[in-house]
Amino acid sequence: MRTSIATVSLSGSLTEKLTAASRAGFDGVEIFENDLLASPLTPEEIRARCADLGLTVDLYQPLRDMEALPEEEFARALRRARHKFELTRRLGADTVLVCSSVSPHAVDDDALAAEQLGRLAALAEDHGVRVAYEALAWGRHISTYDHAWRVVEAAGHPALGTCLDSFHILSRSGDPKDLEGIGDIPGEKIFFLQLADAPLLAMDVLQWSRHYRCFPGQGGLDVAGLLRHVLRTGYDGPLSLEVFNDVFRQSEAGPTAVDAQRSLLLLKEQAGLAAPPAPAAPTGVAFVELVTPDAAPVSAVLGALGFTRTARHRGKPVDLWQRGDARILVNTGPAERRDGTRLAAVGLGSPDPAAAADRAEALLAPVLPRRRAPGDAPLEAVAAPDGTELFFCAAGRPGLPDWRADFADFTDVEAEATAGDHDAGLRVDHLSLTQPWHQFDEAALFHRAVLGLRPQESVDVADPYGLLRSRAVTTDDGTVRIVLTVGAAPVDDTAHAQHIALATDDVVAAARAHLAAGGELLPIPANYYDDLAARFEFADGELETYRELGVLYDRDAYGTFRHCYTHTVGRVFFELVQRDGGYRGYGAPNAPVRLAAQHAARGFTGG
Amino acid sequence: MRTSIATVSLSGSLTEKLTAASRAGFDGVEIFENDLLASPLTPEEIRARCADLGLTVDLYQPLRDMEALPEEEFARALRRARHKFELTRRLGADTVLVCSSVSPHAVDDDALAAEQLGRLAALAEDHGVRVAYEALAWGRHISTYDHAWRVVEAAGHPALGTCLDSFHILSRSGDPKDLEGIGDIPGEKIFFLQLADAPLLAMDVLQWSRHYRCFPGQGGLDVAGLLRHVLRTGYDGPLSLEVFNDVFRQSEAGPTAVDAQRSLLLLKEQAGLAAPPAPAAPTGVAFVELVTPDAAPVSAVLGALGFTRTARHRGKPVDLWQRGDARILVNTGPAERRDGTRLAAVGLGSPDPAAAADRAEALLAPVLPRRRAPGDAPLEAVAAPDGTELFFCAAGRPGLPDWRADFADFTDVEAEATAGDHDAGLRVDHLSLTQPWHQFDEAALFHRAVLGLRPQESVDVADPYGLLRSRAVTTDDGTVRIVLTVGAAPVDDTAHAQHIALATDDVVAAARAHLAAGGELLPIPANYYDDLAARFEFADGELETYRELGVLYDRDAYGTFRHCYTHTVGRVFFELVQRDGGYRGYGAPNAPVRLAAQHAARGFTGG
Repeated sequence: MRTSIATVSLSGSLTEKLTAASRAGFDGVEIFENDLLASPLTPEEIRARCADLGLTVDLYQPLRDMEALPEEEFARALRRARHKFELTRRLGADTVLVCSSVSPHAVDDDALAAEQLGRLAALAEDHGVRVAYEALAWGRHISTYDHAWRVVEAAGHPALGTCLDSFHILSRSGDPKDLEGIGDIPGEKIFFLQLADAPLLAMDVLQWSRHYRCFPGQGGLDVAGLLRHVLRTGYDGPLSLEVFNDVFRQSEAGPTAVDAQRSLLLLKEQAGLAAPPAPAAPTGVAFVELVTPDAAPVSAVLGALGFTRTARHRGKPVDLWQRGDARILVNTGPAERRDGTRLAAVGLGSPDPAAAADRAEALLAPVLPRRRAPGDAPLEAVAAPDGTELFFCAAGRPGLPDWRADFADFTDVEAEATAGDHDAGLRVDHLSLTQPWHQFDEAALFHRAVLGLRPQESVDVADPYGLLRSRAVTTDDGTVRIVLTVGAAPVDDTAHAQHIALATDDVVAAARAHLAAGGELLPIPANYYDDLAARFEFADGELETYRELGVLYDRDAYGTFRHCYTHTVGRVFFELVQRDGGYRGYGAPNAPVRLAAQHAARGFTGG
Repeated sequence: MRTSIATVSLSGSLTEKLTAASRAGFDGVEIFENDLLASPLTPEEIRARCADLGLTVDLYQPLRDMEALPEEEFARALRRARHKFELTRRLGADTVLVCSSVSPHAVDDDALAAEQLGRLAALAEDHGVRVAYEALAWGRHISTYDHAWRVVEAAGHPALGTCLDSFHILSRSGDPKDLEGIGDIPGEKIFFLQLADAPLLAMDVLQWSRHYRCFPGQGGLDVAGLLRHVLRTGYDGPLSLEVFNDVFRQSEAGPTAVDAQRSLLLLKEQAGLAAPPAPAAPTGVAFVELVTPDAAPVSAVLGALGFTRTARHRGKPVDLWQRGDARILVNTGPAERRDGTRLAAVGLGSPDPAAAADRAEALLAPVLPRRRAPGDAPLEAVAAPDGTELFFCAAGRPGLPDWRADFADFTDVEAEATAGDHDAGLRVDHLSLTQPWHQFDEAALFHRAVLGLRPQESVDVADPYGLLRSRAVTTDDGTVRIVLTVGAAPVDDTAHAQHIALATDDVVAAARAHLAAGGELLPIPANYYDDLAARFEFADGELETYRELGVLYDRDAYGTFRHCYTHTVGRVFFELVQRDGGYRGYGAPNAPVRLAAQHAARGFTGG
C-alpha cells in the first residue's frame, strides 16, 4: 500500500519537508494549509517539486466548519471552498479533507449537514476533486466516525466520502467493539486514512491531539487493530501519517521522516501488509565497547570491579576486559578521543546475525560497513538513533564471523597479574543510555522495530536539576535490557550519562571486593538509610552493611533489588546489581537519591 | 504574615535551595522528603543551616497513606510515622503534613479514618510534633477540604489539624461558593496553608498538579480569593508555596525564589495583608533604546521608516531618532557591542517615577543605579527578568529629571537632511520581546506586579521550526503593550528576536513611503493573498495593494489589523501596524506565515 505523510508532521519549510519525505521513501504527502500559505512556491511549483521528488500530492487539508450552517453562512463557506478546490486541483491532488464543524453557528441537524455536504461535493466535482469528511473527536455535533459516515451515506454524492483518522477514533474509545462499525463502510467510500498514535494521557482531547500525537507504535493506541478493520473494507488508498507533536516540530525533518516511515513499516508488518525479515531477538550482551582518550581511569575501575584484561585486538588499540559473562572493550583509538570516555558500541548476541541485519536494513536502520579495518571480522552492525553502534554477534557459532577472532589472548601470567580477588562472575544486567532530547520516542520505536525488544512503561524520575523520563526496552526473558533516558529539555549531549549495570548474585560481596581492590563507591546519604529502616524490615546487621557500602534497596511485588554505583569516568559509570525473586524494575524509587549523590560527588575521584 | 516555601519548588541541592530561599527573603521552608533523603546533611545540620540562614523549618512533608487502613497495615504505617515524627523533631519543625490516602487498601470509613488519625496524632504529640491532614484532590476516599476537616473534627485530638492547599481545593471547583465552608473551620485548627496557582488546563488532576503548578498570580486559579477566606478564620500560620513545576525544576534556584517571593508580595497586597507603594501604571513608551556595534544598518532602516535623527547624547555615542511620538535611541557605546544589535532598554512614561521605582523595589525588581554616567539625568530604572532596562520617565514635568535633557538637538539643517517624505507621525503600538525559556511565567508576573500591566491570554503560534507561546501584558487603555514570547525549548538566547511595532493611521502609505525611501519589506507569499481573497471581501484593488507591499490582514470581533515587517538587523526588526475599530490582537493568525517568511528571508538584506 502507498504511504503518505502530512507536511504538518515534519519541521521546516515546505521544501525541506517534501525533500525529507521523499528521502525517507514516502510515496505521497498531504499538504497542510499553513505550509502552503507560508511557501513562496505557487501550487503548480509545489506540484512540480513533488513530481521531481517522486511524491504525489494525496490530499489538501483542512477545510473547516462547512456543514449544518445557516444558509447565509453556508454561502460564505462555499466561497472559501471554491478557492480551496481550485487550489487542490492546481496542486494536482484529487481529495480535500473537510473536518466536522466546531462552529458555534453549526446546528444539530444531520439532514441539513448531509444536504450541505452534498452541495459541497457537487462543487468539488465541478473542480475535478472530491471531499473526504472526517469527524473531529471534539466536533460540535458530529464527533464519531460512524456518525460522520451516516451523514456521508445520507448525502449520497459520488464525490463525497469519509476520512478515518486513528487518533480521532481511538482517543474517544479504547473499546475494540467500537471499531466494528468500520466494517459497515464500503471501502470505496473511505476516501482517506490518517494514522497517528498517542501516549495514553488523561487530558483535554484537543490539547492531546495538537501537541502529543506520535507515530504508530510510539504511543498507546491500537492503531494496528484499527488498520485491520479498515483493510477488511477493501480500502486501498494511502496509509497517511498526520501527527501534531511539539517535539517533532522542532526536530530535523530528515530523521523524523525516517522515524515516521519506520513506524509505517512496523505497522504494515503488524497488519499483514508487509513481511520484512522476522526479528531475531538478541540473546544477550556479547560485549560493551567504551572509547576513551586515556585507558587508565577506566582500567582502574574495571580492575577494581574484578575484570581481567584478557586479550588485545590484533590491529587496533582495543583491550578486552572480562569477568564471567561481562565483557568490556576499552578502545583508545585516535579517532575516538574527541568526546572523552563514552559507550560507543554494544555487541548483541544474535541467533542469526545476517537475518538481524537484513531486518534492521529493511526497517531503515543505518547499516555500518561490515569490515571497518583490514583484518576485522566482518560483523553485521547498524547504528541506533543516538549513534551507538549495535553489532550482531554469533559468538562461537561455526562458520560465522566471531568478534573474538579479532583478539589475541594475553598469556595467563599477565591475565592473572591484573585479576583481583573476585570469585563469582558478572553479567550485564542492563545498559542505561541517555538519548538526544529530540529522539526519545524514535529510540524506543527503533529498538522495538529493529531489534524486536519490548518497550516498558515510561517512568518519571526527579533529578535535583530537572525531571528525567526513562523507558526500558527488553527481551521477554530479560537477557537484554536497555534503559533509554531523556532530560526535560535539550542540553549538551556530551553531558549525558551512560551506565553499565553488572549483575552479581551477591552485591555485598561484590561491593566489598571492589573496595578491597581499591575501587570507590558512590556515597549515599545516611538519611536514606534512616528512611529505609522505617519502610522495610531487615535482618540484623543487613541495613548497617548497606549503609557502610552505599548499597541501595528496592522491593516490588516480585522480589528485591540491591544496587550500588562506581564513580563516573567521562560519561560512563558502572552499577553493581543483585536482582532477586523476579524483581522487574531498575531501582527507580532510588534514582532521585542516586542522582543527587552523583551531583554532590562531582569531583568525586575520577568523576 | 510569615512566608515559607517548600524545597520541592526550587531546583538544586538542599543547600542551594535553602540559600536561595533565604536570599529571597523567605522566613521559613517546608522540607520535602526527597530533599532530605538525598542530602548529606543530618537533620540537625539542616536545622542549624536553616538557623544560620534565618529560616525556620515550618513543615516536614509528606507522610502518605496513613488512615482508614486495616489494623495490620496501620501498625506498619505507625512504624513509618514514628520515624518521621522523630525526624521532624530533629529538624526543629513542629508540623508534619499527612496527605489523604490513595492506597488501594484504604477503606471508605470516616469513623475509622478519624480514629486512626487520632492515634497518629497521639503518637505525634509524644514526639512533640503535630499532624496537618490535607485532602489530595485525587485522594481515594477523602478528596475535598471540607471532608478532610470533618474527619479531623471527629478525631478531636489537639495535635491534629488540617492543612489547606489552594491547588487541591481550586483544581476541583472554580465555584466561589465551594470556598465558603472554609469559614466553618476554626483558624487554630488550620495548622498549615500551602499556596500554588496553575494555568487552567483540562487534564488529569494528578499530572496537572505534578508538572504544571506555578506561583500565585502566574496561573488561572483564584488563590487570593481562597486566601481571604482562610484569613477570616483567624489563621496566622505561614503562607507557604508548594509548587511542582517542570520548568522551575531546571531553573536556577536564586531567580526562582525571588519570583516566588514576588508572587507572595502581590498576593498579600491583593488580600490586604501588605500595602507596598501602589502601582503607577505607565502612560506610554517614551523611548526604545537599541544597542549596536554598527549604527549604519539600524540607521538605514530608521531613515527609511521616516525617522529623523534629531539629537545626540551629550556624553555618550547615543543618537535619538524620532518620528512623531516614536523615539528610538541608537547606542553604539563600546560596552554594548558584544551581542550585536538588540533592544536594551525601554523608557516608560510614568505619572510618578519615584513611586514607580519604590513599588518596583518593594516587589524585588533589581534597581539600577540612577545615574550611570556623569552628566546623565538621574532616572529611576529597574531590570526586567530578561535583562531589559526599564526607565521610568516623567518627560516634561517640571522639577523631575528629564531623559531628553541628556540630549543636545541637532540643527534643523542636519535634521531635515535625513528626514524622508513622511507626513504623519508614528507611535509605538507594542514591543515584542522573546524571553529566556525558563523565565516566561516570571516575566508575565513581573510586568503585572511591578508595572501594573494586565496579562492577556497565552497564544500558541506555529513557527516552521517549533511552536512559540506568546502572552501580551498591557495597560487597560492599550498605551503600553508588551508581547512576551518564548520558544518550545531552550535555545541560544542571542538568537531571540525582538521587535518594535510602530502604529500608523495608514499602513499602506507608510509602507509605500518606506519603500520609496529605499527601505525593504518582508516579502509575503502569494498563496497567503489567494487565501485572504477566499476568507474576506475587500474593496476593489485593496488586496492587490496588500499583495504588492507585503501587508498582512486580520480581523476580530472589534476591528481590523493591517501590518508589515522590515528586515531584521541583529535581533531586531520593525513592524508597521494599522489598528482600526478597536482590534485587540497582534495579528497572531498571520504569525506562522510571517515567521516562515522570515526564515525564508534569512540573508534578506541586512538580516
